[in-house]
Amino acid sequence: MRGRFITVEGTEGAGKSSNIEFIRSELDARGIDVVLSREPGGTPLAEEIRTLLLSPRDERVCEDAELLLMFAARAQHIAALIKPALARGSWVLCDRFTDATFAYQGGGRGVDVQRIRTLESLVQGALRPDCTFLLDLPVELGLERARKRSMPDRFEQEKQAFFERVRASYLQRVEAEPERFAVINAALEMEQVRQQLLPHLDRLQALRHG
Amino acid sequence: MRGRFITVEGTEGAGKSSNIEFIRSELDARGIDVVLSREPGGTPLAEEIRTLLLSPRDERVCEDAELLLMFAARAQHIAALIKPALARGSWVLCDRFTDATFAYQGGGRGVDVQRIRTLESLVQGALRPDCTFLLDLPVELGLERARKRSMPDRFEQEKQAFFERVRASYLQRVEAEPERFAVINAALEMEQVRQQLLPHLDRLQALRHG
Repeated sequence: MRGRFITVEGTEGAGKSSNIEFIRSELDARGIDVVLSREPGGTPLAEEIRTLLLSPRDERVCEDAELLLMFAARAQHIAALIKPALARGSWVLCDRFTDATFAYQGGGRGVDVQRIRTLESLVQGALRPDCTFLLDLPVELGLERARKRSMPDRFEQEKQAFFERVRASYLQRVEAEPERFAVINAALEMEQVRQQLLPHLDRLQALRHG
Repeated sequence: MRGRFITVEGTEGAGKSSNIEFIRSELDARGIDVVLSREPGGTPLAEEIRTLLLSPRDERVCEDAELLLMFAARAQHIAALIKPALARGSWVLCDRFTDATFAYQGGGRGVDVQRIRTLESLVQGALRPDCTFLLDLPVELGLERARKRSMPDRFEQEKQAFFERVRASYLQRVEAEPERFAVINAALEMEQVRQQLLPHLDRLQALRHG
């Protein structure tokens, strides 16, 4: 039976990493084989593309180049990791996917969403996550949490207004595809966030498809 | 006045480098400011993408990833080098451009040409070369010349049948857009090849546009 494809999204400081680790250990305890991955990245080539994208550089990277690099990494990730894993029955748990492109490049940077849709269709065909956890919290709280944690990379240096647009864009996507998204209140304490995840994992496990 | 955008195409061993150098020095002698460039490449980021594309690697690179990397480099090249140069009146002389994507990925590797067209339109809009020199010669002669010259990279390791498809694909593009292409018989001696280039440079210089 085909595995499930789960993606986790959220703005900076939403707690993606620790919640992904929780989901992984929870699925592990249920005897499910889970492949952890992330975007951009997930294969050696895709990770090299990630490095190109996230390194601070003097050259101004044009919108289209950024967008095409994202989808180049995604194409490789899908062909070399996601599809083979799902086909052999493993679940794929991925830190960000195409929703992040719509939210960051589309909502955040103002890239024409129709261009993103064109590339999504070109690269993914019908492939979509079975469930996308959106860890949602007020932008200011997330930025405060993120600042305590690490050095800012090129994207994290962007301003609060940018992240407000990103969050709004994520929430628009939830409205358009409510059945795919599980919106999690990530402003709560860790234990309360985790409790919100569990019923969705039950539901995914009960799903029969493939 | 807007500059001219000239691209030079051909299969391995066609003599692109030496003919590009000849065109450059010829335009230079006519007092034209020429920017030399190449694809994939032409800017620091695009050159890094070129390195990703041309390095031998264990990971099998999927067709879409290769195609999207090519167009990511192209998007950056156009935005950061080609358009600004043409706008200030310089001529851009480029070693390969989108015709090479149609010929190598489309003709050579069998990538669906409609996918390449979608990306061409997304990335280039209406931008096309003013003149494309196709240095054409029998594949076997070209491979023989290329072997004497350098270590093979990942693309040059491909077989003769591959290059036959590439050549056929270039010639199909000439048929579809005869006014843009100048087909040069590159099997001849260097001096005879150069004599074929000159009338086209005269014609481009006489052109008024922008």
